[in-house]
Amino acid sequence: MTLSEKATESFIFVSVNILYFIDILGTMVFAISGALAGRDKQLDFFGIAAVGFITAIGGGTVRDVLLGSTPVGWMNDLIYLAMITAGVLISLLFGKTVRKLRRTFFIFDTVGIAVFTVLGLQKALTLGVHPIIAIMMGMVSAVFGGAIRDIVCNDIPLIFRKEIYALTCLAGGALYVILALVGLDQFFNVIITVCFIVSFRMLAVKYEWQLPELKN
Amino acid sequence: MTLSEKATESFIFVSVNILYFIDILGTMVFAISGALAGRDKQLDFFGIAAVGFITAIGGGTVRDVLLGSTPVGWMNDLIYLAMITAGVLISLLFGKTVRKLRRTFFIFDTVGIAVFTVLGLQKALTLGVHPIIAIMMGMVSAVFGGAIRDIVCNDIPLIFRKEIYALTCLAGGALYVILALVGLDQFFNVIITVCFIVSFRMLAVKYEWQLPELKN
Amino acid sequence: MTLSEKATESFIFVSVNILYFIDILGTMVFAISGALAGRDKQLDFFGIAAVGFITAIGGGTVRDVLLGSTPVGWMNDLIYLAMITAGVLISLLFGKTVRKLRRTFFIFDTVGIAVFTVLGLQKALTLGVHPIIAIMMGMVSAVFGGAIRDIVCNDIPLIFRKEIYALTCLAGGALYVILALVGLDQFFNVIITVCFIVSFRMLAVKYEWQLPELKN
Repeated sequence: MTLSEKATESFIFVSVNILYFIDILGTMVFAISGALAGRDKQLDFFGIAAVGFITAIGGGTVRDVLLGSTPVGWMNDLIYLAMITAGVLISLLFGKTVRKLRRTFFIFDTVGIAVFTVLGLQKALTLGVHPIIAIMMGMVSAVFGGAIRDIVCNDIPLIFRKEIYALTCLAGGALYVILALVGLDQFFNVIITVCFIVSFRMLAVKYEWQLPELKN
Repeated sequence: MTLSEKATESFIFVSVNILYFIDILGTMVFAISGALAGRDKQLDFFGIAAVGFITAIGGGTVRDVLLGSTPVGWMNDLIYLAMITAGVLISLLFGKTVRKLRRTFFIFDTVGIAVFTVLGLQKALTLGVHPIIAIMMGMVSAVFGGAIRDIVCNDIPLIFRKEIYALTCLAGGALYVILALVGLDQFFNVIITVCFIVSFRMLAVKYEWQLPELKN
Repeated sequence: MTLSEKATESFIFVSVNILYFIDILGTMVFAISGALAGRDKQLDFFGIAAVGFITAIGGGTVRDVLLGSTPVGWMNDLIYLAMITAGVLISLLFGKTVRKLRRTFFIFDTVGIAVFTVLGLQKALTLGVHPIIAIMMGMVSAVFGGAIRDIVCNDIPLIFRKEIYALTCLAGGALYVILALVGLDQFFNVIITVCFIVSFRMLAVKYEWQLPELKN
């Protein structure tokens, strides 16, 4: 192995680990957002934990079930369960503080969504489906947790109403596939795609980009 | 191969293709009905597309997930995605016209339900479950898309309240299994079953057949 | 085979059959509770049957889908379908009587939940997931049917609000795993776990144990 190859390898190793790190951090952030939604609905401790859990693993679970990759992902690595438990505890103990840290929280949430999209997309590609389906599965990984949270809490899912971020995930996924097809190195592809999704969503929220509603 | 065999083969070929054709047309009609429901709920473009999509593939997806036939059906043939996209666009661009063409639309919807039932039933039989389970899976293929649409839109599913058509699909499926058991050729069996389901539902709607509600 | 081995074997045979018997009886009781919920929602016959069915098989179905054990359990043994049909008919014909027998019904429901928990847990262990995941799958088997019933009937799931029994199932599952790890015979383990869950829930209901809600 040449020095250059060694460098590349450790580079990839680090980048895979960064993705993994953001993935489990994002899972915790999702659990916090779900648990806070449960608190708003006056659920008891178990209900809050359940909604936090479902929000955190819902997207990846739907993706894995649809693709037939079972037992579903979070069952194979207990770190996800641990991070969700931590997230639920944080929102129980420090709910008010978390709500005040809305901005920080929003950034983590956005980065989490971006990473979920990329990892979901990569998993689907590994399982051999068409890239277009893989793009959809990336989006599903990122946004379905929140959608199930809303259904369980008896609301019409937010992603069906206001948020532009499902579309952002689709666009980010499409970008990733295109860059992969033109031969971009996977490492840079991941970075570019994550940055694209994060910036796009931040701009969308800042300038209140919304998809138009239709008047009947 | 004799002439007769050749004729039979091309006959089967044509009939399989007709089923396939109605299947993808039915998928589009379901997407239209879902997208129109999304418009009624004041969803944005993405929400409308999502509800259209879920309505169109929901039944077959639940069937495939329960039977373990994954990746689920629509992932293996992009024509379904294309037809759904077309259906969503039609309901966005020509929503008013489609609503006026209620009668035509209703006929397509009914034929779609009949074909979904037969194809779902056949798929389940192929996967080796008991015919009674296969009959249920035929019904699930046909009606669960609409049920999920209603849950997502925060209504109690219509099939649980008014429509007699879930029962029609079960009856149609039972007819198919019985005719297959007595040795009827599959081609004629499909035609008879589809005609049965279509006529039964049309009569049910025309004469307002309803299952009784129970007074408590 | 010695006499002692024979005795052990028939002992295990009987106990497996008792579990199976309670399992199918519990399925019927769940179907009754679902069908009664459907009656309360003014659904028609089909809707009542559908809600009864979903309540009865929902938990096991979610467990099997997440674990990838498909076709899902109830498809492989028609007795479940038969018991559900019986349960739905009972609640249609003798709804008032069943409601009066609330106490008896509650006991069956509780024993059913306990047995569902143990069987779900055992199935998950058989499929090779981590014991902690298996404990969760035991709970999912027992309580998700009711949760889906509530979602379909457009309520926030009861288990997310008042009932302490999801937690009871988790505690029971943990007890089972611990006793298995310290080497307790499976037969006694099942009996102890079922008794624990049943007593705990009865006490919880009698003394109105509730998880605290959080004030915001």
